[in-house]
Amino acid sequence: MFFLEKAYEEALKALNKDEVPVGAVIVKGGLIIGKGHNMRISENNPLLHAEISAIQDASKTLNSWRLDGTTMYVTLEPCMMCVGAIMQSRIDRVVFGALDKKGGCVCSNLDINRLKLPFKIEYEYLEHEKSSQILKDFFKNKRKGK
Amino acid sequence: MFFLEKAYEEALKALNKDEVPVGAVIVKGGLIIGKGHNMRISENNPLLHAEISAIQDASKTLNSWRLDGTTMYVTLEPCMMCVGAIMQSRIDRVVFGALDKKGGCVCSNLDINRLKLPFKIEYEYLEHEKSSQILKDFFKNKRKGK
Repeated sequence: MFFLEKAYEEALKALNKDEVPVGAVIVKGGLIIGKGHNMRISENNPLLHAEISAIQDASKTLNSWRLDGTTMYVTLEPCMMCVGAIMQSRIDRVVFGALDKKGGCVCSNLDINRLKLPFKIEYEYLEHEKSSQILKDFFKNKRKGK
Repeated sequence: MFFLEKAYEEALKALNKDEVPVGAVIVKGGLIIGKGHNMRISENNPLLHAEISAIQDASKTLNSWRLDGTTMYVTLEPCMMCVGAIMQSRIDRVVFGALDKKGGCVCSNLDINRLKLPFKIEYEYLEHEKSSQILKDFFKNKRKGK
């Protein structure tokens, strides 16, 4: 749970910017080499999900576009774009703390390992209560107009 | 074919950088508001496919992360990451000039309209001979070690 906690700390940064609170870290050899949080609205960039931001950060750290041998920990099941980005950057494994029944594309809306794509990803859903709770609270407050 | 030709001109820019030659343009009301080419290796960024680059460009042009009412023309069928990015940026429609049997995620490896995702995209495969030929030639030359 240690690295999911670290991803959750990233989600808190998104929350502070009134962004959908999702965070991610990328780990290699026990060290965090990249981190990111959702900054879609604050950066006016539709692509800046937590995962994308973390991948860009890790690529800078390693000075390489290939992130072989790394694991991404992310608070929410990645969407189609982010699953594809994880494949494109050759990340080996993704661990997520909450399921996204609506848009998740690891196991909820499609099972990535049943597709015959050139890249495979190992994945694990490791329930992390705070990761889903922060999202529930965020959307509840939005509906209340807070 | 006019806008696929424009996308092809972008692919030529990638070729000049020895990148896999794929190009894209985004059109709104008959005007090109964003363009991009594959710059993955030259920019050391695993995410910089032509489509992603074009989306970022169009977001700057419109000063918005929402690209509603636009069409993307791209020389090659988008991969999973790019299909997801097209959805995330609310692009209405994508037209591509060549199929990607290996990694394409619009109709080749999965049919996006059969998934129950929150966003739908219209798509059209409009065969554009030069768009596939430039890729065949690129990989043939790579295999020859040129």
